[in-house]
Amino acid sequence: MAGEKWVRMVTAQTPTNIAVIKYWGKRDENLILPVNDSISVTLDPAHLCTTTTVAVSPSFDQDRMWLNGKEVSLAGARYQNCLREIRARACDVEDEEKGVKIAKKDWENLHVHIASYNNFPTAAGLASSAAGFACLVFSLAKLMNAKEDNSDLSAIARQGSGSACRSLFGGFVKWIMGEAKDGHDSRAVQLVDEKHWDELVIIIAVVSSRQKETSSTSGMQDSVNTSLLLEHRAKEIVPKRIVRMEEALKTKDFGSFTELTCADSNQFHATCLDTSPPIFYMNDTSHRLISCVEKWNRSEATPQVAYTFDAGPNAVLIARNRKAAAQLMQKLLFYFPPNSDADLDNYVIGDKSILKDAGIEGIKDIEALPPPQENKDALRHKDGVSYFICTRPGRGPVLLSDTTQALLNPQTGLPK
Amino acid sequence: MAGEKWVRMVTAQTPTNIAVIKYWGKRDENLILPVNDSISVTLDPAHLCTTTTVAVSPSFDQDRMWLNGKEVSLAGARYQNCLREIRARACDVEDEEKGVKIAKKDWENLHVHIASYNNFPTAAGLASSAAGFACLVFSLAKLMNAKEDNSDLSAIARQGSGSACRSLFGGFVKWIMGEAKDGHDSRAVQLVDEKHWDELVIIIAVVSSRQKETSSTSGMQDSVNTSLLLEHRAKEIVPKRIVRMEEALKTKDFGSFTELTCADSNQFHATCLDTSPPIFYMNDTSHRLISCVEKWNRSEATPQVAYTFDAGPNAVLIARNRKAAAQLMQKLLFYFPPNSDADLDNYVIGDKSILKDAGIEGIKDIEALPPPQENKDALRHKDGVSYFICTRPGRGPVLLSDTTQALLNPQTGLPK
Repeated sequence: MAGEKWVRMVTAQTPTNIAVIKYWGKRDENLILPVNDSISVTLDPAHLCTTTTVAVSPSFDQDRMWLNGKEVSLAGARYQNCLREIRARACDVEDEEKGVKIAKKDWENLHVHIASYNNFPTAAGLASSAAGFACLVFSLAKLMNAKEDNSDLSAIARQGSGSACRSLFGGFVKWIMGEAKDGHDSRAVQLVDEKHWDELVIIIAVVSSRQKETSSTSGMQDSVNTSLLLEHRAKEIVPKRIVRMEEALKTKDFGSFTELTCADSNQFHATCLDTSPPIFYMNDTSHRLISCVEKWNRSEATPQVAYTFDAGPNAVLIARNRKAAAQLMQKLLFYFPPNSDADLDNYVIGDKSILKDAGIEGIKDIEALPPPQENKDALRHKDGVSYFICTRPGRGPVLLSDTTQALLNPQTGLPK
Repeated sequence: MAGEKWVRMVTAQTPTNIAVIKYWGKRDENLILPVNDSISVTLDPAHLCTTTTVAVSPSFDQDRMWLNGKEVSLAGARYQNCLREIRARACDVEDEEKGVKIAKKDWENLHVHIASYNNFPTAAGLASSAAGFACLVFSLAKLMNAKEDNSDLSAIARQGSGSACRSLFGGFVKWIMGEAKDGHDSRAVQLVDEKHWDELVIIIAVVSSRQKETSSTSGMQDSVNTSLLLEHRAKEIVPKRIVRMEEALKTKDFGSFTELTCADSNQFHATCLDTSPPIFYMNDTSHRLISCVEKWNRSEATPQVAYTFDAGPNAVLIARNRKAAAQLMQKLLFYFPPNSDADLDNYVIGDKSILKDAGIEGIKDIEALPPPQENKDALRHKDGVSYFICTRPGRGPVLLSDTTQALLNPQTGLPK
């Protein structure tokens, strides 16, 4: 096999996800075992996803990785843990077309090249590591012909980034915290697929921020060590919310879904604030976004929109249907208009049909928007929001058979 | 007695206070009985206090009140509760100079005039109701010759505004939550007087805010009804902190005092965030003030400054001594400089000797300040802070015998 010139490649696409019942706090830092179950919604990979190409060749002399075109080190424990676990599950591979045969035992001595690309700005704080590690593990598993199912793979992706385990499925996903010391039962399962509740529309407000944020890894470690509220949350509150959220998802009860999603986001941020030193992920713009949704929901007979914030100031807003999403878009653009010299096409991205439903075709339509009925004295805030992304719940990982989408050159195994 | 023309008056001055272990949540809305003990520091009335003149005359035909010169209604239950409780404790009064005799039973039929004035901006969110109700009850008790001591009076002031009970004493004060249904044992006691720890210096950053704030009355009611963390805080966490705080005060252990004060402020705001709808009292400027203090404290061998925030964005910063206060002043003026056309005299008010210790005599000295050692890349934020007040722990209520300080005309009993 040595000296041969072949390169075998696999390309996969994996979605990102946002938790509606939050993960905050590990009981094992190395294995990444959480202190409570969590539930997330997978976001449509058409708008937010990672694409990863993995390649193996006898000509590679070391494992290498490129992230968004730039080479990054694989030396970190999290990458090493994922690579080791996947290699341990590698099987015989036979590629008749290329005349390549790799025996199970060969994988120990073969190196891989990995190229990964996010179709959304990495600096936006949109859980790129979740999609990234899920895609890494999923694509390597396919390359190495590992027989494990996605739930098994999720327990490996978990060791790269906790929330990555939830990106192995579409729809709504539960990360079961598990009990075992070795973490084999700490894995994701799909609760309902993306078609089950397909009325939902998701609008993400990417919030401008000049402040350096606390990384979620060090933040949650500080919370575990210093917050006196976290343990109570993890042991007493979250287990009940998980049961109620599963029920709300099964019955598509948007009122209950909204109540739980908003309360759990706020409680996660409360726990951050109860940490020493305190962690602030939300800023004044985040607060205004919450206030906009709360005012509207309380002015209606039933809630129209749920909000949730991860470890950053961005709002993820989940509207009960397209009609609510169009109304939400109008309100958001009233409160947070683009600068008058801005390009609307770059200010609202993703599924632009929501903008059309809202009757907005240009900056002038935004300037003409009336203040929301429920807040007639509302002020407009320029500069608070960088842009909006319109999307929806989406599917889990897929293999891309179209080789033109590969990020590595099929001859050299280096980035295109 | 009827038809007589005399007016009998009493003028008193009462301090405001700021909790270092917070009160948040009532177990009885009408009697204002809290869900946990709290501890506060009384602020020097030279810089923050209420002055109240109360008058009685047979010529008054109804109870009336003026607040900062403007007549206000006394119809609210909180005023009525205080007036009723004090009247029930009125005793015989004999004023030989004026030839006035009021028998205990006469008080039922006599009306009072009340004029109250805060020596600090009322809109600043600096617990004016605490000083106000304490002063109302204290001055009426003296007018009516009630025999109750300040702790007894605190249980009456509590029915006007919970935190008012802690303004009946100087130094550090504990509000004991009590157990009785009628609330007679829910009252304040002095832990140490204002001379016990007189090294402490207090700097208040009055933060600009455009947002309408949730009143603490409705906010804490919402927290009691919806926060799943509040009960745990009140029952499990605060009782232990009270014991530790009392010990820290007794031994003047500034490290422990700071740890407890900051953690409890943050946890109170965490509980607000865990409320539905969530309550945000702190804004981006508040967060920056916390970050300024946390960075400094962590760069020193021992903490230099404690911070605490009430139901608003203002920071109350407690420095361990004058030296630390002068350094703090430099840092604060670096991060939050006045506008260059501002008058420094109005930007730093109260005890201006701190400014002198910091070597700052004019705007140019502020512009020349270097960034803090512990944060050399620090940005300067104009417009975040309205002004600073320098003060210290102070004394409890006093009677003002100088009649020129009275707020009511001694002949007419109407505002001067």
